[in-house]
Amino acid sequence: MVSFAKRMDGITGSIIREIFKLLADPEIISFGGGNPAKESFPLETVKAITREILDESGAGVLQYGTTEGYSSLPRSYITHIAQKKGLTNLKEDNILITCGSSQGLDLTARVFVDPGDVVLVESPTFLGTLQMLNTYQAKLVPVRMDDEGADINDLEEKVKKYRPKMFYVIPTFQNPTGKTLGRARRESIARLAEKYDFIVMEDDPYGDLRYRGEPLPPIKSFDSCGNVVMLNSFSKILSPGLRVGVAVGDPAIIRKMTVAKQSNDAHTSNLTQAIADAFLKKGLLPGHLAEILPMYTRRLDAMLTGIDAYFPETFTHTSPEGGLFVWGELAGGLDMPALLKAATSQAKVAFIPGQYFYLDPAAMGQNTMRLNFSAAAPERITEGLERLGKLIKNAL
Amino acid sequence: MVSFAKRMDGITGSIIREIFKLLADPEIISFGGGNPAKESFPLETVKAITREILDESGAGVLQYGTTEGYSSLPRSYITHIAQKKGLTNLKEDNILITCGSSQGLDLTARVFVDPGDVVLVESPTFLGTLQMLNTYQAKLVPVRMDDEGADINDLEEKVKKYRPKMFYVIPTFQNPTGKTLGRARRESIARLAEKYDFIVMEDDPYGDLRYRGEPLPPIKSFDSCGNVVMLNSFSKILSPGLRVGVAVGDPAIIRKMTVAKQSNDAHTSNLTQAIADAFLKKGLLPGHLAEILPMYTRRLDAMLTGIDAYFPETFTHTSPEGGLFVWGELAGGLDMPALLKAATSQAKVAFIPGQYFYLDPAAMGQNTMRLNFSAAAPERITEGLERLGKLIKNAL
Repeated sequence: MVSFAKRMDGITGSIIREIFKLLADPEIISFGGGNPAKESFPLETVKAITREILDESGAGVLQYGTTEGYSSLPRSYITHIAQKKGLTNLKEDNILITCGSSQGLDLTARVFVDPGDVVLVESPTFLGTLQMLNTYQAKLVPVRMDDEGADINDLEEKVKKYRPKMFYVIPTFQNPTGKTLGRARRESIARLAEKYDFIVMEDDPYGDLRYRGEPLPPIKSFDSCGNVVMLNSFSKILSPGLRVGVAVGDPAIIRKMTVAKQSNDAHTSNLTQAIADAFLKKGLLPGHLAEILPMYTRRLDAMLTGIDAYFPETFTHTSPEGGLFVWGELAGGLDMPALLKAATSQAKVAFIPGQYFYLDPAAMGQNTMRLNFSAAAPERITEGLERLGKLIKNAL
Repeated sequence: MVSFAKRMDGITGSIIREIFKLLADPEIISFGGGNPAKESFPLETVKAITREILDESGAGVLQYGTTEGYSSLPRSYITHIAQKKGLTNLKEDNILITCGSSQGLDLTARVFVDPGDVVLVESPTFLGTLQMLNTYQAKLVPVRMDDEGADINDLEEKVKKYRPKMFYVIPTFQNPTGKTLGRARRESIARLAEKYDFIVMEDDPYGDLRYRGEPLPPIKSFDSCGNVVMLNSFSKILSPGLRVGVAVGDPAIIRKMTVAKQSNDAHTSNLTQAIADAFLKKGLLPGHLAEILPMYTRRLDAMLTGIDAYFPETFTHTSPEGGLFVWGELAGGLDMPALLKAATSQAKVAFIPGQYFYLDPAAMGQNTMRLNFSAAAPERITEGLERLGKLIKNAL
């Protein structure tokens, strides 16, 4: 048998995938996922838009397109999304349309990370990116988090010590913790990237899912030297199944990522890009958000209320103002993988043990869990938390 | 400025992209492209199918999907395409749906090629794959071709000398030459891969565009040890803009490629996969091919006739039985890039100088050209060849 490349050593797929197999049982109330609510998809709008696109530019949509992005989508993204985030100076050469923000993350790593390069990551962080960075044979170094997200003192210390190529950060409603970096920290990260010359890979899939509080400017908006690459996605504001994302960066970086994408998949589907483009151009995003945010707010509230009602007092948790996740920690500890087994088989409820979001799951996050609140209706959330709370109390 | 990864050294994008900018002039009759004819897209069918999909499973299509492939597309591909190619023993774990065959090629390289690994390539071959393999820092070694494609003796010699990780081959209606490997050579390649333990990356985007002659079994059909990975695409038989392709391989390889794809883009768009799936399940492919093949046949015939009528006798060319390209060579030689400049500016006709399809364009293929016949109607092809022929004769 021909041997696989070294970059694939130990890369066996996400543990969460394995956990998902536990969840196939439809009776299970799942806090384990990370999908947007299927009720949030503007299905009738997508139907109407798609019909129009195929009627008006069907042959163009079906032909090969350019790697950079289809038609006016880069421009529409700038006008309808980026400018509202405070990114006021973008031109089309700052934009690359990607196959979800996943591909944006992958391409950023592809053009920057050599084997052995240090990449700093929040601890805990999104598992998928850890796996992706491992395929580039990066040396991953964790940055400590406090209640407001990445600890800037620890970040600077690690930057000085390791001289990293890159810092991967999810500044808003972070996965898995739901934490949000304040304005001052965002600015500090941009300044550190300039001072010590490293790339900030700013992953912002959840920023528009804000249920209360004031929006914060992206780290990219404080970037004066071009070292911040921001990844956005239509997955949570329109549909993940369409696989449309956006990378925003310095023109030289975007050009390099475009060449890398040309080798990777030539271009993203024109049809799904055209759907995202029309959705923005018709000005439908604000109304759509106004429709779905109250639904998510009710689910978040059901979760926060339910945890306080049914979980032991030794369970502390984040109270995010948006996103999809609440993060909890049980003082004293508990074997979370064992609890998950009991939860799915006996109580018919699921969550993700938090340790899997750490670089070293055997040593970190043993007493933590990630709870997703987007998948179920409020009553089901309450019921699930009651069952899970009972199980935790019994296990203590 | 943060430095790019070494894998991007010298990777600046395809020269063909630059040439395409020369072709923006709509008056130009272009033999330079490689796109399927826009008249070949079953637009009305796609419209009807898409409406049905969104009506019947809209929410499922808009949600995240699995990395392996959406719904029944892997099964439909096996039944409606692979089995007809003589691949009779495939199961779903032999299949990964990709974002065009581009991504299939990229993922195959990603899981197998370490920096410095030798990859043998036909000489000349598809430029995009050369660029992609360069990003994996492969050491590329050319294999000689004769009229029937890759020379098996030269292949075995190079295999013995370089002990390659992989051989990249386009067996049917090759890009850029239009050449097709015979059955015996296909079997020999599979046997060599078994004997010397290397991967055959079999790229088959054009196989179904056969205008005459008998179909040949893929190299994969002679594979008894699992060393052949075959890449297929819906780009030439349905639509390239949808970006749907298929990788076929040994389950252990497909599993590794699936993990790599999970890190790359999570999954291919569900909507475009569902369109390809319905197209197959409704049994529409054979009728669609029956409709478009005669159109392509007329274009190929116009090209072969036109070359013979208008080009000098010292111009020899391939006479492919399918695909999109004819390859020609001018005895004695001519500065093809200079000819291209004159052709686009004076004669308003375009082609691609063949040297760009070689690993060493400064030393190889100086007197060759690739002529695409899929983009223009037969009368336009005839007219373009008359203009180009005149220019060549004047330049001699």
